[in-house]
Amino acid sequence: MQLKNIVVHQVYFWLNNKADLPKLVEGLNVMVPITSIRDIHIGIPAATEERDVIENSYDVSLLVTFNNIADHDHYQVDPLHDIFRDDYAGPLCKRVMVLDSVDA
Amino acid sequence: MQLKNIVVHQVYFWLNNKADLPKLVEGLNVMVPITSIRDIHIGIPAATEERDVIENSYDVSLLVTFNNIADHDHYQVDPLHDIFRDDYAGPLCKRVMVLDSVDA
Repeated sequence: MQLKNIVVHQVYFWLNNKADLPKLVEGLNVMVPITSIRDIHIGIPAATEERDVIENSYDVSLLVTFNNIADHDHYQVDPLHDIFRDDYAGPLCKRVMVLDSVDA
Repeated sequence: MQLKNIVVHQVYFWLNNKADLPKLVEGLNVMVPITSIRDIHIGIPAATEERDVIENSYDVSLLVTFNNIADHDHYQVDPLHDIFRDDYAGPLCKRVMVLDSVDA
């Protein structure tokens, strides 16, 4: 189905140390109960065909959808998000890329 | 809800000419009927808070989810995808970034 009236929050993480992948995934799972989340997916790069346009250098991906920007903003200040940022993403990652989208 | 057993296909487009935004969105909508698609969202950058980690230089975003890699591969060769690539993305975009993810 075509999703409309949502906010798409996509985040890509590059680890300092690839051995920390299970730890970062554990941290992402801490955020699953945040009540303003519509849907959440925790991922790793897919083994799709290598092409020039493919960016697969990241280690872990996070997709979160919200019903509106207010729900996104609530998520950013939820105590569970603080735990993830301070105890997992901050110490474990060398780079984080966030792309937020609304309906075209 | 936590999404599992899916493939997340996220694409970001940078236009040669920002005036072509409606045309590119029209082209993305051509792909909506592709039968192997689970969910699809066509977007533009959200007005979320500016932070160092935010990448909002793209013009249009596409999120497509699939139930498996086979469905993703079918989508890539669907005739509607060819129309989008050849008549819209190819001529209109200077950069395309694709990030595919599966469950962590």
